[in-house]
Amino acid sequence: MPSAEWKWQSMTWAKRYLTKPRPRQKKRTDAMDEMGLPFEEVLARLKQFSSRDHHFDDGDIFGSMCTKPHDAAIKAHMMFLEANLGNRGLYPGTSDMENEVVEDVGTLLGMQRPKGQMLSGGTEANLLALWSAREFTGKNKVLLPQHAHFSFKKACRMLKMEAIEIPSSEKYVLDSKVLPGFLEDNVACVVAVAGITETGLCDPIDEIGRILEGTSIPFHVDAAFGGFVLPFIEHPPRFDFDIPKLTSMTVDPHKMGMGTIPGGILLYRDDSFLKGIRSHAPYLTQKSHYAITGTRGSAGVAAAFSAIKSLGCSGYRSIVRDCMDNTRHLCARAKVAGFPCAFEPLTNVVVLSMNEPEYVYKMLTDAGIFCSTSRNPKGLRIVVMPHVSRENIDALVSKIKEVVTCPP
Amino acid sequence: MPSAEWKWQSMTWAKRYLTKPRPRQKKRTDAMDEMGLPFEEVLARLKQFSSRDHHFDDGDIFGSMCTKPHDAAIKAHMMFLEANLGNRGLYPGTSDMENEVVEDVGTLLGMQRPKGQMLSGGTEANLLALWSAREFTGKNKVLLPQHAHFSFKKACRMLKMEAIEIPSSEKYVLDSKVLPGFLEDNVACVVAVAGITETGLCDPIDEIGRILEGTSIPFHVDAAFGGFVLPFIEHPPRFDFDIPKLTSMTVDPHKMGMGTIPGGILLYRDDSFLKGIRSHAPYLTQKSHYAITGTRGSAGVAAAFSAIKSLGCSGYRSIVRDCMDNTRHLCARAKVAGFPCAFEPLTNVVVLSMNEPEYVYKMLTDAGIFCSTSRNPKGLRIVVMPHVSRENIDALVSKIKEVVTCPP
Repeated sequence: MPSAEWKWQSMTWAKRYLTKPRPRQKKRTDAMDEMGLPFEEVLARLKQFSSRDHHFDDGDIFGSMCTKPHDAAIKAHMMFLEANLGNRGLYPGTSDMENEVVEDVGTLLGMQRPKGQMLSGGTEANLLALWSAREFTGKNKVLLPQHAHFSFKKACRMLKMEAIEIPSSEKYVLDSKVLPGFLEDNVACVVAVAGITETGLCDPIDEIGRILEGTSIPFHVDAAFGGFVLPFIEHPPRFDFDIPKLTSMTVDPHKMGMGTIPGGILLYRDDSFLKGIRSHAPYLTQKSHYAITGTRGSAGVAAAFSAIKSLGCSGYRSIVRDCMDNTRHLCARAKVAGFPCAFEPLTNVVVLSMNEPEYVYKMLTDAGIFCSTSRNPKGLRIVVMPHVSRENIDALVSKIKEVVTCPP
Repeated sequence: MPSAEWKWQSMTWAKRYLTKPRPRQKKRTDAMDEMGLPFEEVLARLKQFSSRDHHFDDGDIFGSMCTKPHDAAIKAHMMFLEANLGNRGLYPGTSDMENEVVEDVGTLLGMQRPKGQMLSGGTEANLLALWSAREFTGKNKVLLPQHAHFSFKKACRMLKMEAIEIPSSEKYVLDSKVLPGFLEDNVACVVAVAGITETGLCDPIDEIGRILEGTSIPFHVDAAFGGFVLPFIEHPPRFDFDIPKLTSMTVDPHKMGMGTIPGGILLYRDDSFLKGIRSHAPYLTQKSHYAITGTRGSAGVAAAFSAIKSLGCSGYRSIVRDCMDNTRHLCARAKVAGFPCAFEPLTNVVVLSMNEPEYVYKMLTDAGIFCSTSRNPKGLRIVVMPHVSRENIDALVSKIKEVVTCPP
């Protein structure tokens, strides 16, 4: 453990460092060039930019819930680059692929008659769910866990709904014991999370469903991350449409579904769910729209289709098994190094307990290693996505140890 | 001209046809397959779906404001498939490309110091503009032209803002003479369109700017379509940031910018514009967010960059010149065939006057030819995008004539 003296010094140093102004690139003031460049020159510039980006293959991305898409997804994405389900009549093939993705993922998640649509991602799906709930109920309070994804608070601000945070239990999930005290007349929606962004844990969705029995409050589950993980772990909690009260669910093929961005799905039990948010576009091939975006890049639909068909349940199970093996490997290594897991991981997200995780995060970032931090429990957050190998994990643990024990 | 008798018969027939239930595909009820398929089998299915979609190269898409992206855009899109500006710290190269696109397009559109961001498309940009205006002003009325894109009404419903339609003049653009009568205390934003979806025309943005002088009302221009057309036509109206009152503007690289979906830009004169809509994501590399979507597929940023650098102003000018030549060709042919243009086209959008454009539209659609309709003026709407050739136009005009003169 670092001494108090060292800690003070390093924090002072970190504070100086963190507030030091970074050198800014000189501002360009040129207008668009009159003449175009030959593609070789454009390509050279693209390669320069790409070399400055970080890539999943580099082994230094530990804080993202996206990953390198499946090869079959990338190929499908390219084939359907023009597809735009915002003008659905032109794309009956893509439209049928969307239906098949919704069928496959919906049945995976406990639906008897899957209904849903593909969207740009989890944020759009969560926003639509809250908007629908507002229109459907005419009410405006949203009960959500403290750890809900930031898209919910953004949606509440946009929609002029009131976000009311339900406290977490000591297990870092929504405390279902206190929930009944929050149920009142003006509640438009209850939100729970399956695969919490910061911890990978799962709210007690089954219990929440029981608490909501006898009410008509819509119940939305954000399984953007967990939707493609929980069905494939060994002892999954109940979290899906098998729970009768569940109204709608977000699940993202572009996270653990091995699809490409943009790829989110909103599933809903009942078509009437979207009735209140219909838009009318008289000049398009499809007159009624239920999404936020207008032009909808639908290459992600083909990519999700291709990943799902290429992998099947057994493929996803194998990916999740590998991720969970690596997660346990990380926990074991980190424990030996002095940073025990703050809780037993349910999915492939780990929070390591340590002093000053923000400082460690910052030092790692400066070294080109991208983790993130968790607020509750406080710690260094690592997402063990399919692109993260054991070698990457070993290197990460060594680096964390180095950062903590050898301040600059 | 068709006789009244024929018209009656055809309308009756059309009504029968239009209300006839279509055969539905048998509902799949299978769950996700246990085993994945070899890629050859997945590819065979993808090809089947693709063969049922319509493609810009087929020569039958006349109603879309998207087009086949520039080759250089497609290549760049593939190179940056992983990029996600929702987690900006991982993608400094893509982030700098975004800045350069904003610089290039901003200066093209009259900005001295371009500010803006790339988004999923025009709808997200328009939604952000209205949300910003609501937060910035604390007011909630939006004055918009009758022909404003449907995203504005959708945004108003989401944001609980009141959309107030300003009547059009006899020239099918916002009637600036009546605008002053609508200006009152509770106006959060005035919207005008440069490249109206249904007509391609341009609202009198210069005049509106003058009318708004002395007020502090934000003024948003939707140039999703016109932003990459108007700067390149021979006698463009004033419509851009050169007009001092203009606050923000939407422009879509994935329309006439020859980029890929998702590719929209929101430009704003002042950074404080977005202050009210900041979201906070503690666990990401970038803590402050100003977009609707969370994970932001940013392959479209690279595609826009690549198209802009490959084409330069001269490239866009040449594309627009070809589109305008084809537009005039269409007008001439259609006039001879008995369907004169309802107005002289300003951009590459044409509305052909005819009886029963809805019927003609429907018959063309059934024949696999995709135009659309316009409400004001009433007519058949054709967007002469870069993928539309003279041969396509000639075939279209023949088909329209056939549909009108030879009812089934």
